[in-house]
Amino acid sequence: MKPTNILFTCAGRRNYLINYFKEALNNEGLIIATDMSANAPALADADIAITVPSIYDENYISTIKDICLQHKVTAVISLNDLELPLLAKHKSNFNNIGVKVLISNEDVIDIAFDKWKFYQFLMKEKLTTPKTFIHIDEAIAETENNTLSYPLILKPRWGSSSIGIETVDTKEELILVHKLLLIKLKKTILYKASEKEINTAILIQEKIKGSEYGLDILNDFNGNYYGTFAREKLAMRSGETDKAISVITPEILAIGEKISLLLRHSGNLDCDIFIAENKIYILEFNPRFGGGYPFSHEAGINTAAIYIAWLKNEKIKASFNNYKSNITFAKCDRLLKIKSNS
Amino acid sequence: MKPTNILFTCAGRRNYLINYFKEALNNEGLIIATDMSANAPALADADIAITVPSIYDENYISTIKDICLQHKVTAVISLNDLELPLLAKHKSNFNNIGVKVLISNEDVIDIAFDKWKFYQFLMKEKLTTPKTFIHIDEAIAETENNTLSYPLILKPRWGSSSIGIETVDTKEELILVHKLLLIKLKKTILYKASEKEINTAILIQEKIKGSEYGLDILNDFNGNYYGTFAREKLAMRSGETDKAISVITPEILAIGEKISLLLRHSGNLDCDIFIAENKIYILEFNPRFGGGYPFSHEAGINTAAIYIAWLKNEKIKASFNNYKSNITFAKCDRLLKIKSNS
Repeated sequence: MKPTNILFTCAGRRNYLINYFKEALNNEGLIIATDMSANAPALADADIAITVPSIYDENYISTIKDICLQHKVTAVISLNDLELPLLAKHKSNFNNIGVKVLISNEDVIDIAFDKWKFYQFLMKEKLTTPKTFIHIDEAIAETENNTLSYPLILKPRWGSSSIGIETVDTKEELILVHKLLLIKLKKTILYKASEKEINTAILIQEKIKGSEYGLDILNDFNGNYYGTFAREKLAMRSGETDKAISVITPEILAIGEKISLLLRHSGNLDCDIFIAENKIYILEFNPRFGGGYPFSHEAGINTAAIYIAWLKNEKIKASFNNYKSNITFAKCDRLLKIKSNS
Repeated sequence: MKPTNILFTCAGRRNYLINYFKEALNNEGLIIATDMSANAPALADADIAITVPSIYDENYISTIKDICLQHKVTAVISLNDLELPLLAKHKSNFNNIGVKVLISNEDVIDIAFDKWKFYQFLMKEKLTTPKTFIHIDEAIAETENNTLSYPLILKPRWGSSSIGIETVDTKEELILVHKLLLIKLKKTILYKASEKEINTAILIQEKIKGSEYGLDILNDFNGNYYGTFAREKLAMRSGETDKAISVITPEILAIGEKISLLLRHSGNLDCDIFIAENKIYILEFNPRFGGGYPFSHEAGINTAAIYIAWLKNEKIKASFNNYKSNITFAKCDRLLKIKSNS
């Protein structure tokens, strides 16, 4: 049988994902991982590890295509928000050489990448989400009219950024932090859109006081709904879920299915929600495997095995989906030896 | 033989340390771990895991003492900067019930905890360190006299804080960030000293453009020098070393020994330095095991085994110290099941 070789790009520190897929492949294919940093931890666990240029390098796509051809890659999975728009654009390009790019179409990537577009999408679809502003004057006016109240959240509008999320409790703090985030954004700018629309590049958002949940909403590669796997976040670290407990409720399953039907995204979609006073607030989509996926996996959904079955046109075995509620996992550090190149 | 039972307080996510000590103990003693959070990852790897009140709770010390008596604890190791001053104060108290508290004396803890005192200590000892200010006016005056130049670093003066380290490139940014950090500090204040001296609670520091190194400077429990184990930091995450390569040079060994002789600290001391233009700048001390210790351990120094030998009055075996340079390790995530209490 033809081996199923899977390429993870921007593999970074997602060792668990590499290992889940290796296990699911059961030696019937190889895991290839690329990263621009030779000492990205995930490279150490892959069968084949390759250092590549930055995604902004003009040779990036051709390098990835060459790797696909050389290693007979079946499918490509990207783990980086900034790479998704790029790969989405070149999807048919890869298709033409017989390589499946397992990411969503440009429209889905686009909505997820621009948090203001995302807000307008949610408004249009009448989905509940925190009140959001891109003009500081409008946010201040609403607080003064008592239609909005502190604390408020400030965050960059585009993609994943080295700039953190900030909470502010007063008008003075709001103005200070807004000014500062704009200064920082100008220094760390990664995405051209921010430059063109710098004055609307910081999002101001109502802070929902409730429980935060992460959802893995799984569609097949044709956009058909498969299932929703949720966890309540118990702790965060560096923007990723650090501790979580698996949860199954009819409300969460319903919102997952609704999002799947609206987006018809491809494969796994990581979605953040808040639940407060029995309302579900949608916070963010990441149309990829997120830092919360291992919690879903450990609670019984083997998306790695499901992906491979779909790639091979095989049936999904019952054992691949054994999701249980009330299972708590935490991340902790593992030390990994990095082979020297010299 | 009497078992050597070791208690790690504020164990948090230092699973590697728990496991290094378990391995070194070789079943001749137990590892007990405490934390105020029942789902602290390190609790899962300990032989005995106990949830305790916050270190600020009036019953904290008596709870820890009770645990020591109940589980026949030989020695206590704390992993938290905010707990060190507390345990240092009660050291003789524990000694009286036959329990060794393996942390430095109050004077050492004190110097490390107040970064301004630390700066003055380094000045007095004629050790090189970045120029440091607690008054923003003085820092601005020096930049205007060209005796100090941007970028500058801002950070809280006391202990470990939830407030991050900020880099500023202009006077405007310096004033903005200084104002903001003071507002944040007032909200997250943990240590009474900051309240009394709030106007000098933010440190402004020259930014050294060089390579950053982490040192484990090891003394025995009487303050006698044992050795220095260093690594160059290749990447950081959440304030901890994420990737590093072990390094042995005469200059680093010399500065480690000098610090040991000056401080006569007890056990392991984590020390951050910068090397720029052949000068060694001392940045910070943490008189405990730091997030960089596993890199030293993996490069060949088994401080866990050495601690246990010292506790048992046994000889240090040659195999405990086999430190090699040029060994690179990275941290990555490991998933850990948390047992339910319900």
